[in-house]
Amino acid sequence: MKIYKTEVKHGENLLTWLRKKGYSLPSPCGGKGVCGKCRVRVLEGENALSMPYPGLRGISLDEWEIGWRLACKTMLNEELKIEIPDSWNEEANIMTDGDYEVALQPCVRKVYLELPKPTTKDQTSDFDRLKMVLGDVEILDLELLRSLAQLLKENTYKVTAVLHGNTVIALEGGDTTDMLYGAAVDIGTTTIAGTLIDLNSGDEIGIYTSLNPQKTFGDDVISRITHTIEYKKGLQELQKLLLDELNKMTDYFESQFGISAENIYHINLVGNTVMIHLFAGMPVENIACSPFNPVTTHLPTIQAKELGIKTNPNAAITSLPMIAGYIGADTVSCILATNMLENSGYSLLIDIGTNGEIVLGNKDGLLSCAAAAGPALEGAHIQCGIGGVRGAINKIDITPNGLSFTTIGNKPAIGICGSGIVDMVAQMLDSGVIDSFGRMVTREEAQDKLPSDLASRISVYNGSPSFVIANEGEKAAKQIFITQKDVREIQLAKAAIAAGIQILMEEMNINYDDIEKVYLAGGFGNYINQYHAMRIGLLPAECKGKIISIGNAALTGAKMVIKSGGFMEAAEKIRKATGYVELSNKAGFQEVFVDNMEFK
Amino acid sequence: MKIYKTEVKHGENLLTWLRKKGYSLPSPCGGKGVCGKCRVRVLEGENALSMPYPGLRGISLDEWEIGWRLACKTMLNEELKIEIPDSWNEEANIMTDGDYEVALQPCVRKVYLELPKPTTKDQTSDFDRLKMVLGDVEILDLELLRSLAQLLKENTYKVTAVLHGNTVIALEGGDTTDMLYGAAVDIGTTTIAGTLIDLNSGDEIGIYTSLNPQKTFGDDVISRITHTIEYKKGLQELQKLLLDELNKMTDYFESQFGISAENIYHINLVGNTVMIHLFAGMPVENIACSPFNPVTTHLPTIQAKELGIKTNPNAAITSLPMIAGYIGADTVSCILATNMLENSGYSLLIDIGTNGEIVLGNKDGLLSCAAAAGPALEGAHIQCGIGGVRGAINKIDITPNGLSFTTIGNKPAIGICGSGIVDMVAQMLDSGVIDSFGRMVTREEAQDKLPSDLASRISVYNGSPSFVIANEGEKAAKQIFITQKDVREIQLAKAAIAAGIQILMEEMNINYDDIEKVYLAGGFGNYINQYHAMRIGLLPAECKGKIISIGNAALTGAKMVIKSGGFMEAAEKIRKATGYVELSNKAGFQEVFVDNMEFK
Repeated sequence: MKIYKTEVKHGENLLTWLRKKGYSLPSPCGGKGVCGKCRVRVLEGENALSMPYPGLRGISLDEWEIGWRLACKTMLNEELKIEIPDSWNEEANIMTDGDYEVALQPCVRKVYLELPKPTTKDQTSDFDRLKMVLGDVEILDLELLRSLAQLLKENTYKVTAVLHGNTVIALEGGDTTDMLYGAAVDIGTTTIAGTLIDLNSGDEIGIYTSLNPQKTFGDDVISRITHTIEYKKGLQELQKLLLDELNKMTDYFESQFGISAENIYHINLVGNTVMIHLFAGMPVENIACSPFNPVTTHLPTIQAKELGIKTNPNAAITSLPMIAGYIGADTVSCILATNMLENSGYSLLIDIGTNGEIVLGNKDGLLSCAAAAGPALEGAHIQCGIGGVRGAINKIDITPNGLSFTTIGNKPAIGICGSGIVDMVAQMLDSGVIDSFGRMVTREEAQDKLPSDLASRISVYNGSPSFVIANEGEKAAKQIFITQKDVREIQLAKAAIAAGIQILMEEMNINYDDIEKVYLAGGFGNYINQYHAMRIGLLPAECKGKIISIGNAALTGAKMVIKSGGFMEAAEKIRKATGYVELSNKAGFQEVFVDNMEFK
Repeated sequence: MKIYKTEVKHGENLLTWLRKKGYSLPSPCGGKGVCGKCRVRVLEGENALSMPYPGLRGISLDEWEIGWRLACKTMLNEELKIEIPDSWNEEANIMTDGDYEVALQPCVRKVYLELPKPTTKDQTSDFDRLKMVLGDVEILDLELLRSLAQLLKENTYKVTAVLHGNTVIALEGGDTTDMLYGAAVDIGTTTIAGTLIDLNSGDEIGIYTSLNPQKTFGDDVISRITHTIEYKKGLQELQKLLLDELNKMTDYFESQFGISAENIYHINLVGNTVMIHLFAGMPVENIACSPFNPVTTHLPTIQAKELGIKTNPNAAITSLPMIAGYIGADTVSCILATNMLENSGYSLLIDIGTNGEIVLGNKDGLLSCAAAAGPALEGAHIQCGIGGVRGAINKIDITPNGLSFTTIGNKPAIGICGSGIVDMVAQMLDSGVIDSFGRMVTREEAQDKLPSDLASRISVYNGSPSFVIANEGEKAAKQIFITQKDVREIQLAKAAIAAGIQILMEEMNINYDDIEKVYLAGGFGNYINQYHAMRIGLLPAECKGKIISIGNAALTGAKMVIKSGGFMEAAEKIRKATGYVELSNKAGFQEVFVDNMEFK
């Protein structure tokens, strides 16, 4: 329970006032007084307390009599003492599209100014003239200061100031306050996703997605790092690819939604530590070899023009903080989006991407580790593996009578993606195609042990057994099969994740029963069959019923910061509260890892 | 009386500790325990209080027994509660070479770091590794951040950090703490002076002086502004001249004193508002015409490399704040050096340069105005006028028996400089060569009224009387004389100053009796005969005995800031406390001005 005293604000309603104070509170109906969710209790306030009961959804007559009101229908014509339900705070940081709103307090804002013209009696300097209205702000950019006098004169002292925190980053003639945009960008090793956000309304206008153009230099971060070590200009080359991609993004926003890049004033980035370093042109070679330490865990705020990014030249480029060489801004962002540092119950976060990041803890602190899961779950290093593209087999169903599958876009199969592989391995296990050690039956063994349809699918690849999912022509563009080696890859990946979870639990001295929620981040989590993932031990079976897929939570966190600057501080709090466990350094890790190779 | 609790610091003495806390305290002997000035009273501290009396200068046995000690001889091996005499605070802001020291707390400082190398158990990022020792500092320069990893590795994690406030501006391999320099620079319309300061000792190593290279575009600020209006690249041209001159200065420091420009990390500038604007490349055209408002009264901190200044590329370039278009950072600096805002008695500051700035007030507030005195007192617009160069007549003595003069450098006279002109006009007045309205006697009138030597010196120039000081060959390289028009120029100049003083006194509702001190700033003040200046009404005769010549106080203030960053805040306090009176706008100013044309 939080108790507040409002200042008297004639005419404003309490919901608006609370939002300005940074409270993110439920209001699905948008303040129309019909959803009954923005409940507060008025403790002091004569007019508010003496109002007759109007018959409101969400508040009973009994509740009304002890002061419960809807914030959206309570006007601030007097000073109120109010009580705010605890739940608001918890809900404040969870962004579940639609249900709750993030208080709109962007890091960048615009203020339209109609300044008094100078006279001989008022020789206030041009910049001090701005400060008369804006308070004690700074202009750090000399070019901006140099252009100030002319801009004011040409626009008869009517200008719009763009502020990032306390710094004036741009000035525009006339009233341009209706054009204020920001973008949240997740730079993944494999894919890049950016959301354009209208900072006046909080609306997400559109999203841009692309493959990370660095992919030509290798699938994983190690191969990218290697490129910077082997080629003198490798670092600049990889950096330029990212910068060019961001410029393609703003071009796309301009052509698709008619939003001028000039009016984008803030880009907030998340990504793993290597991606953020490459973006800023910082060397990454130390991250590749022990002791893996990065240059920094904080990117300074960068002016867009310094990197040649085609937004407003003085746009602020920021990044969420990072934790270690292999726990990046994307993980911090996921933690932010799940709010797990604010809950008293324990949460487990599993982000399965090209690498696997695991975080465990509660409001008393978090521990993180990076599991070398490898890219098998993204379809890489799998014989017929493929990313989540059209034609990828994404769901497989094996019954004694046979095997059926679906593909993305309902196209003829060209390969198998992560969710399909998980389905496959789980059902191979259940049907006896592989044993608990992952060993696949031979053709001969299959004749005895398997139903005929399954037995007929056992083949040989490179001297080991393989399992045919589809032959060319059977809804497939080519033969698709799973090899013994593929099963081993999945075993390595799932053992790495499971061992990571186990080590973190040991460090925190808790067990599965203590874990209230398991957040599964990444695109993978949206498509995977959770029961199959539990069957193969990729997700802990002990947490059945507690698993929540949160999609691209890294991007969600990045958007939260774009919309409400206070989340940047929350992110810093997360960084400070999150410890890092280096698994390779952990006594007993190898044993735990090997233990988890088995399917239990 | 101020009471402090010290933290326990093994081995450090109290004097050092107090200095680190920002206390500027008297210690003429440099902490050797012999001058007896750094007296403090220990209130709590067992060891310190139980020490036997050693017989000390400055502390009697009685005083010793009630706890008086010398800070320089009191070791911090225990927590002390101490009392500091009030007088220390007041003395802190006055810089009177030798007697008291400015607490050496430069805006830039160096810290030598021997950092632990990263291990798999300590994967702290390179930058966070710095922060472990330096606290919550920032690196804003991307280039610096990019070079960090390599620098640390190459120097086995032994590096020196250079800090400006909270920002790391440079990093150097090994221990370079003994090389830390700054420069204070006064950019005058006519001359430039810069002092190189060792920031480890506070020693002023040397001074560089030159003419302002912009002089070829005119003697006064108006002609410089006109150049920027008439020529498209005029502003950049004038800026470049100043930047080039600063680079000549650092070259000079390097060749003359062996101090590498790389090791200069801070340049603090003062100058009039036009000079500071031109230095930063900011337009000045508004300052030339009503309402005279400048672009800004604050320069942001600029990185040297942004302007191409040859110091350390990340050196901080700062300026003291300005007050108005015609009251600049130089005036703020003079106020800082005189400490006039801290005194309860009224002080009057007169800075006579190419323009005349006047400030009046006390600790309750200051008022300033700019008097259009013109450059006559610098020898310009005077027929035989010349600056204070070798061969300039600087002192003149007229007796009934004749006239004698001295020249700078004892060279044959080539002209007459400001102090000579003041001598001349005062004595022409006393001897009856001019009357109280400034009218010069004709040759005919002279025959009757003047002693024969003086009468013989009256000649005619351009149809009006003139007075010959020396003919060619009489210790002079050419004939030197004063014209009727020259006298009128001096009358205009002195009337402008006197009217300015009078208007400020009227605004503050005080009179000459209320003024305790008159500070005369500028090179001019050092050489002028004060009695002659009072005779002609250039300085108020009512303030006889109260006039203090403070030389280049603008440079003194700039040096104070270089040595002790706290003075920057004091300068900002001055800026806020100093009002500006636009004389041209003042009802009654013309009457006061004309009244003061007469010699009284």
